[in-house]
Amino acid sequence: MKPLHNFTYRIVYLVALTLAPVAALAADKQPNVARESAKSDQVEQWGVFEIALKGPADGNPFVDVELSASFTNGDAKAVPRSAIHGFYDGDGTYRIRFMPDKQGPWEYVTTSTRKELDGRRGKFTVIAPAKNNHGPVSVRNTYHFGYADGTPYYPFGTTCYAWIHQADDAQKETLAALAKSPFNKVRMLVFPKWYAYNRREPSVYPFEGTPPNHWDLTRFNPEFFRHLEESVAQLGELGIEADLILFHPYDERHWGFDHMPADADDRYLRYIVARLSAYRNVWWSLANEYDLLRAKSESDWDRFFEIIARDDPYGHLRSIHNCRLIYNQTSPLVTHASIQDGAAVEDVGRAEILRDVYRKPIVYDEVKYEGDLDQRWGNLKPEELVFRFWNAIIAGTYATHGETYKAQPDQVWWSHGRVLQGQSPARIGFLRKIIEKGPPEGINPIDPWQDMRTAGKRGEYYLIYFGKETPKDWTFELPATKLAEPLDFRVDVIDTWNMTITPLEGVFHCTLRPDKYRYACENRPTVDLGGKPYMALRVTRVHSDR
Amino acid sequence: MKPLHNFTYRIVYLVALTLAPVAALAADKQPNVARESAKSDQVEQWGVFEIALKGPADGNPFVDVELSASFTNGDAKAVPRSAIHGFYDGDGTYRIRFMPDKQGPWEYVTTSTRKELDGRRGKFTVIAPAKNNHGPVSVRNTYHFGYADGTPYYPFGTTCYAWIHQADDAQKETLAALAKSPFNKVRMLVFPKWYAYNRREPSVYPFEGTPPNHWDLTRFNPEFFRHLEESVAQLGELGIEADLILFHPYDERHWGFDHMPADADDRYLRYIVARLSAYRNVWWSLANEYDLLRAKSESDWDRFFEIIARDDPYGHLRSIHNCRLIYNQTSPLVTHASIQDGAAVEDVGRAEILRDVYRKPIVYDEVKYEGDLDQRWGNLKPEELVFRFWNAIIAGTYATHGETYKAQPDQVWWSHGRVLQGQSPARIGFLRKIIEKGPPEGINPIDPWQDMRTAGKRGEYYLIYFGKETPKDWTFELPATKLAEPLDFRVDVIDTWNMTITPLEGVFHCTLRPDKYRYACENRPTVDLGGKPYMALRVTRVHSDR
Repeated sequence: MKPLHNFTYRIVYLVALTLAPVAALAADKQPNVARESAKSDQVEQWGVFEIALKGPADGNPFVDVELSASFTNGDAKAVPRSAIHGFYDGDGTYRIRFMPDKQGPWEYVTTSTRKELDGRRGKFTVIAPAKNNHGPVSVRNTYHFGYADGTPYYPFGTTCYAWIHQADDAQKETLAALAKSPFNKVRMLVFPKWYAYNRREPSVYPFEGTPPNHWDLTRFNPEFFRHLEESVAQLGELGIEADLILFHPYDERHWGFDHMPADADDRYLRYIVARLSAYRNVWWSLANEYDLLRAKSESDWDRFFEIIARDDPYGHLRSIHNCRLIYNQTSPLVTHASIQDGAAVEDVGRAEILRDVYRKPIVYDEVKYEGDLDQRWGNLKPEELVFRFWNAIIAGTYATHGETYKAQPDQVWWSHGRVLQGQSPARIGFLRKIIEKGPPEGINPIDPWQDMRTAGKRGEYYLIYFGKETPKDWTFELPATKLAEPLDFRVDVIDTWNMTITPLEGVFHCTLRPDKYRYACENRPTVDLGGKPYMALRVTRVHSDR
Repeated sequence: MKPLHNFTYRIVYLVALTLAPVAALAADKQPNVARESAKSDQVEQWGVFEIALKGPADGNPFVDVELSASFTNGDAKAVPRSAIHGFYDGDGTYRIRFMPDKQGPWEYVTTSTRKELDGRRGKFTVIAPAKNNHGPVSVRNTYHFGYADGTPYYPFGTTCYAWIHQADDAQKETLAALAKSPFNKVRMLVFPKWYAYNRREPSVYPFEGTPPNHWDLTRFNPEFFRHLEESVAQLGELGIEADLILFHPYDERHWGFDHMPADADDRYLRYIVARLSAYRNVWWSLANEYDLLRAKSESDWDRFFEIIARDDPYGHLRSIHNCRLIYNQTSPLVTHASIQDGAAVEDVGRAEILRDVYRKPIVYDEVKYEGDLDQRWGNLKPEELVFRFWNAIIAGTYATHGETYKAQPDQVWWSHGRVLQGQSPARIGFLRKIIEKGPPEGINPIDPWQDMRTAGKRGEYYLIYFGKETPKDWTFELPATKLAEPLDFRVDVIDTWNMTITPLEGVFHCTLRPDKYRYACENRPTVDLGGKPYMALRVTRVHSDR
């Protein structure tokens, strides 16, 4: 035990970070969240309630002091939240953040190895969430996601690995571009990136020390993490989930954050979880290309999952992204499979296999990027990336966007953010709108092993995607299910590239075919598809009486 | 404890089952193995050494008596084999079977809960294996298999679920057909089958009792198991692995073997493992379509894997086959993934995904069958099944054959065996010969995510398969690897359906292309492929000087 030093504490102040997502963000306007000016004893459900305490600043508070709090609400049946970890934020300030999941009165009491931080009590009130606050996202219906308030969440993510490590104006541009984009998830690195197109020092580092590689790994730099939090909150205001990548291999021993000793790794994880888990839009992505972090073994990653699952009281989504070697995604600590596969979403049948294997949501978080790099992973045509998104959806899975046009090497969206130049985002947005109007349970394969083009909700809603086929027409036919007749359907013709939806007149009455595997209509009516690629059909059940 | 009864024991006799695979078996000649006439104190390495002891016949010896033996050989460094379980074989006879893995002198001593079976000692000599005895098969090079003597084993299996439950002459016909076939593995059920085309009572049942469903599940019927063992030994003589399916759902509550209580399941597993694990060609397939055995939960299957892994001293291959729900094949108790997927091998890219997921051999043990059933799983054209076999191989995996021509409903090969009528076996045999002449390490994808047609061994051996494409020609080009030049290759053109291999004259000299992803030749020479489907190329490195 270190000697107990004298100190004063000034105030217990409460900070409600509203984090309310807004539909669009003006590019020239910084979102005013994550600032400590908003003191209040009220907080929204799923908002961030913060306790700030003054405590010792000498010694090394990052490792010397343990601090946590227990939270209870008025409802005796409610599960109390115990051992919410606090953290040291520099300058003698300690904070404990809490995301309440129930409305009404709450109380807390702190526990600490330091007497002056121990036994602090307080009360606050949790009010209804704002309109665009749906709570955190979790797994729903085995293969899909939903917000805590019941709203479905369909991930349509993009990739801006190092956007928070760019100049301030670049970060503003990125947020403005995201606000106008169809994307509701961003994959982003915590640590800075040293890699092709990325050889600049950031303005702030996660540890105390001297760049490039003299760090005191026992002392975090609060300024770095405050910036990270502000960025996460800004995304939250845009309704965007922050898929935070906790480790990555793009360091090349420049800073060495890819090969810290195990105790530093573990301390970093506990610190970032204590700081950020109260932000409802946080997802934990343990790594990008985990298998390229050569200094770590698979058991390190197992341990990281355990630390996060234990320390994060809210069970935010947990995943790990691979290069060539797929992690054991079967582990119950992995909430969804975050997969890099350069070919899986070229084919619905490929993309679907991992659903059967893992029985959890499959997010193809790297499927190659729209762009014009020399590298094969960065030169997809926009049509190809849109095709891959549709294949992922028809497979009952999800894909993530990335863009790598090299014209301006300091603003490649995939890493720096700034400006989206590609043609795929608009089409991805078009797809997203279709999915959000579809069944809230999510899109699932209808007759796998037989009909790879058709997905949806059995008996009610079908998307039929023709991909690169160029059919002149389509004869009405659907995979059979045990349904009572009449079986009446309406059909919309979708041009996925030109973004048009054309409803057909009339209703298709169909019956079970003799082979009992398909439904068909009596006169075998056809639908004109114009011989073009990238066409789809939306077939919706009509339940009114004939 | 039950009272100890008086009895006599007659003899400790040793039975060496030679099990030597022979190239072909005359249809009219029963293989003379698994008979107790071959008494000897010598046994081949990987043969079956058997101790037979007389013991109590009263009470219920199947549950009352524990018997095992420890085996040691002269080499002090050799691992002793302890706790080899014995079993009761009826009529007061107890047996302990042992498969020695080292040549030289061995000793054993028995342990039993019955004094008269306890402390029995003996010696025997293990001699060199016969020419066609390569030992048991285990996993090799992560994705492949090999015999214990180092010979590669490439599974080219077929499916005769209920062949041992047919009339005697049918079983002889099946063995004769197998002897002439290209197949070196048979998937077969232990319990009889009650299903479409399979509604006959077998001549013998696994338990004492009265058919169809009055069984004493605590008393096995040794006759049933002796017949099973003889069948396994007969396959062994043909060089065929017996992929024994321990549970299956094709019972429809007729006999009830699909929903026995847990203690009966476990006792059955321990009994069959004690009886059969000394047979070197046994593989344990826990189930066919395990997820259709509705009375069992996944934890039952977990327990079954544990029982078999614990009781089988030789670690025979262990797998479990699914219908729709894939078991957790990541478990270290699963030696290889035995997968039913009706579509995975339609596409190399699909088939390959499970390699990345499981990092163990992938055997697609049900890929639909060549036949003409109304059911979609049983009406593949022969071309389609051969296509699927090639896709599996190019993906670095394996497929299993099945045949379902319904002309004679009591001799559908898939279940009854008897006669192979299809056109795929000859082509599968042609493929097997090619693979057996290929790299002993097995065929692996060369440039996944980019080139799905090419597999083999980097820098040395490539198979390029065009499947249903009908290219007129092919421009010489290979995925690049870090190889020192000169890079000289010879090319054979393979017609996989017409079973021809045409070597091309001359050598292709190639260099790295500017994009660094491919090798190509200077004048871009082409190879004529005739515009036909199902063509392949074999490209082999030439190491001699130019």
